[in-house]
Amino acid sequence: MFGNLHVHGNSILVVTNTTVAPLYLDKVIDNLTRDNPKISVETVILSDGEQYKDMDMLMKVFDKAIESRLDRRSTFVALGGGVVGDMCGFAAASFLRGVNFIQIPTTVMAQVDSSVGGKTAINHPLGKNLIGTFYQPQSVLIDIDTLDTLPERELVSGLAEVIKCGLVRDPEFFEWLEKNMDALMARDHVAFAYAIKRSIENKVEVVSLDEKENGLRATLNFGHTFGHAIETGFGHGRWLHGEAVAMGMVMAVDMSHRLGWIDEPLVRRVHNILNKARLPTVAPEFMTVEMFKSLMSKVADGVLRLVLLKGPLGNCVFTSDYDKDVLDETLLAFSKP
Amino acid sequence: MFGNLHVHGNSILVVTNTTVAPLYLDKVIDNLTRDNPKISVETVILSDGEQYKDMDMLMKVFDKAIESRLDRRSTFVALGGGVVGDMCGFAAASFLRGVNFIQIPTTVMAQVDSSVGGKTAINHPLGKNLIGTFYQPQSVLIDIDTLDTLPERELVSGLAEVIKCGLVRDPEFFEWLEKNMDALMARDHVAFAYAIKRSIENKVEVVSLDEKENGLRATLNFGHTFGHAIETGFGHGRWLHGEAVAMGMVMAVDMSHRLGWIDEPLVRRVHNILNKARLPTVAPEFMTVEMFKSLMSKVADGVLRLVLLKGPLGNCVFTSDYDKDVLDETLLAFSKP
Repeated sequence: MFGNLHVHGNSILVVTNTTVAPLYLDKVIDNLTRDNPKISVETVILSDGEQYKDMDMLMKVFDKAIESRLDRRSTFVALGGGVVGDMCGFAAASFLRGVNFIQIPTTVMAQVDSSVGGKTAINHPLGKNLIGTFYQPQSVLIDIDTLDTLPERELVSGLAEVIKCGLVRDPEFFEWLEKNMDALMARDHVAFAYAIKRSIENKVEVVSLDEKENGLRATLNFGHTFGHAIETGFGHGRWLHGEAVAMGMVMAVDMSHRLGWIDEPLVRRVHNILNKARLPTVAPEFMTVEMFKSLMSKVADGVLRLVLLKGPLGNCVFTSDYDKDVLDETLLAFSKP
Repeated sequence: MFGNLHVHGNSILVVTNTTVAPLYLDKVIDNLTRDNPKISVETVILSDGEQYKDMDMLMKVFDKAIESRLDRRSTFVALGGGVVGDMCGFAAASFLRGVNFIQIPTTVMAQVDSSVGGKTAINHPLGKNLIGTFYQPQSVLIDIDTLDTLPERELVSGLAEVIKCGLVRDPEFFEWLEKNMDALMARDHVAFAYAIKRSIENKVEVVSLDEKENGLRATLNFGHTFGHAIETGFGHGRWLHGEAVAMGMVMAVDMSHRLGWIDEPLVRRVHNILNKARLPTVAPEFMTVEMFKSLMSKVADGVLRLVLLKGPLGNCVFTSDYDKDVLDETLLAFSKP
């Protein structure tokens, strides 16, 4: 597995977690050292979970790097899902003002989304991903075989981002996904390799045009504003990120339709494909309209910009120019008054 | 003071410390808000001192930014010396993956050195500046009047970097400094404006050629490897950074001379100018050869690269290709066996 890994320098720090380490850490270390006995590999094994993506865990990575006397030529390797990648990436960006960084994502979510585009971050007690930088990895290594050990909830959580990608910018891919969702749910490697590759190609195109998210890149947050509200309201970790995004897409699609920006058949297609992927299309019961409103309006000037579908499949806008009453209608349709 | 300050966005976070705030904070806020009543200014006032350049203080900056609901279009302003600039810069680099950043350095050290070139960092219990990034400010605003309130030790600490700049790359400037040190020590504003401007021009030239310090920029660390050992051995804060750098330059010059790379008269000129600036030329008594050795060799592969003078005034090398016995001789000349 993992083909051949080539790194700069002779010092490597692998950051992974307690779930992934027993499955793949030995294989990765073997791969890194096989052709180069001079390489030294240190490891940090973090607790598994979004709630550990915090400053305390980040400091553990720094502590290990400093104790191991790693210098600027060393390479940090993130082996795991989005949490490991985000945290290891931020550590690599800020250790000695930046060292080499390689991603080995082992979840669909990390493979199609978080490992591509250079976003790194940790959470703050008051919000997700508030502390971080843009820092591009030297390379991203994806081995489809890692999907065989992935729990189904994790698998389909990643598919939410894949579906999103088709919805906002690649109608042909969305149609392919509608036809091939059964194969993906059966973990067909060929189908998955294609879905991952095409998702990454889309993301790379967007990021290369707008790395710092001044406009275009924001469209990749389709479903995320509603979704983040659910994640935060629920407490992180109860719903997986992709589950919350799926639900957020349902709400954004509902609002787009109420605004008259998309046709009814597209609404049904979105519900159908999410149902096929066994992703949620009904919001958690305890969410209220006020909770949504307070959790969605993070911005100082009070203007809530949303990504909404507009026009034929594959088209969206990132805008604050919508009827605010329609937002209320959508919130009321999915939560308690 | 401070001319006219223009910033992006309508939200500003000024980071300063307990020493600088009473002197200049009101003036800066007045300046920022005078022509734009829509601007909101939040402030974080840190304890003054290198020992507070740590993760706890950094978190206070993030806490304030998050509580104030600052968004990506906000601007962080560092008002103070190197500690404030380094910490505020790292906060600006990593808050929401990077916000606007302006430096208003109020010490000579920050004006000629730390505010130029985009190095940001905080300290780790095991070493200085181990956690940070490269992040360039949108602008750096220097008001020479701030020097009138600067304690003399702080003033001459900054002059150590000014002198270094002449020594390693600008012989004409070094000669100007030899002639004008009395005016600088008398805080002559015209002389200071020239010394600061010329130091910055030198640094900007180096940084623009080698931002990430792969080679050329390392030459600006002349005196710093010996100096850092003294700062760490002594406990940070007992000697100011520039005082340790001055002492480090004396040692590096001594070693360069022992290697036969520079003439005796240059050694004397360095001693003379540092004495005129009332900077230390004798190492702290408690330092031993072993302390120097252990504190200087931070690198994993054990090869200690040093910046040493070589050739006529204004020339230096960054090399590990020197006689190790000569390093021992220099250490022994300045510390106990």
